[in-house]
Amino acid sequence: MSIGVCLISGGMDSCVCAAWALWQGFEPAFLHVNYRHLTEKRELRAFQDIADHYAVERRLVVDISHLQQIGGSALTDRRIQVPEGELGQPGIPVSYVPFRNGNLLAIAASWAEVLSASHIVIGAVEEDSSGYPDCREVFFRAFSQAIETGTRPETRIEIAAPLLHLRKKEIVELGMRLGAPFELTWSCYQLEDKACGRCESCLLRLKGFAEASVKDPISYVE
Amino acid sequence: MSIGVCLISGGMDSCVCAAWALWQGFEPAFLHVNYRHLTEKRELRAFQDIADHYAVERRLVVDISHLQQIGGSALTDRRIQVPEGELGQPGIPVSYVPFRNGNLLAIAASWAEVLSASHIVIGAVEEDSSGYPDCREVFFRAFSQAIETGTRPETRIEIAAPLLHLRKKEIVELGMRLGAPFELTWSCYQLEDKACGRCESCLLRLKGFAEASVKDPISYVE
Repeated sequence: MSIGVCLISGGMDSCVCAAWALWQGFEPAFLHVNYRHLTEKRELRAFQDIADHYAVERRLVVDISHLQQIGGSALTDRRIQVPEGELGQPGIPVSYVPFRNGNLLAIAASWAEVLSASHIVIGAVEEDSSGYPDCREVFFRAFSQAIETGTRPETRIEIAAPLLHLRKKEIVELGMRLGAPFELTWSCYQLEDKACGRCESCLLRLKGFAEASVKDPISYVE
Repeated sequence: MSIGVCLISGGMDSCVCAAWALWQGFEPAFLHVNYRHLTEKRELRAFQDIADHYAVERRLVVDISHLQQIGGSALTDRRIQVPEGELGQPGIPVSYVPFRNGNLLAIAASWAEVLSASHIVIGAVEEDSSGYPDCREVFFRAFSQAIETGTRPETRIEIAAPLLHLRKKEIVELGMRLGAPFELTWSCYQLEDKACGRCESCLLRLKGFAEASVKDPISYVE
């Protein structure tokens, strides 16, 4: 059985990814990265709850400060407001954290190489999403090549992004089929107690559950 | 004048790189990454000294712990001994830090995107070096593509590795021509007071200075 390093933020997509990785038969190694974003504490709890749910022993929690030092995003700089309201605005949203997934994949690649893992599993979504450039297949293909050329000759690591071309509705449906513990997840960008229901992450999540005709088990602000 | 994010470890190669970037006319932004490696403190001093020498105002010092948490290298795991003795052993040396340059370039790319920098400058050496996989042109080409695809459409960042195909002797000669302050640099992998003169980094450095017929201005253990 080969090891899959799963990037688990604690959100619904990464939770479905975890369920997928276990269903695929990977020996799981769960990786969580705190980057001093607004909801870091709540997401860490979601990560640990999901890891407990699946009894995953191999866990790595990494704290990095540089994305917050660098700023340039509503998620890491409190002076930039998290947008609320409508989905589907043109352009890259201000919640985009510059090259965040490049940083996350680099950490995952280092760990995967030391573990001799065969895969990195990431819950990125390209279509029904916020339009971040580092959530696209073209980026994951390029990063795979960077890992292939930047590690030992015997290291072979593939990036699996099983949700990449699913719509949010289909992600909810897949999670339901695989028994993913949605009640343990956290997606909201700005609150940690009850979800705001208004940021783009909440709106995408609520849209997915609504279209799949499934009740979202987490609590929202009235 | 365009901004160049310069990865400055504090070693002789990064110092020559800094001299090169200034000579090229880049507006410098110096980035140093502490990854809890053995000589982290001494290298940070070298970084600040080189930045002071060139009166660089834009500096970012980043502390990451995950490469040490992950281990797998003599530079980050004290249980693995730093090798001494002969250069040119076959295979990847135990001083290789898994995908370290992938992590460093990801940090540099995030900062470069926020600064609207045009270049990342890195002092990697392919030929006359330790044979790390993440110091090869094929890797930098792949990582450039990852940056290109994983950042905003308007972001254009090139990776410049001006020393990549130079021999150590030529790096010393280039540094001398550009007036690089070699006396401020630190290359030793295991000591922080006087350089050991025996680790592969010291051996490569001493070989470069000897072949260039230049006296290395730093102190070595007798």
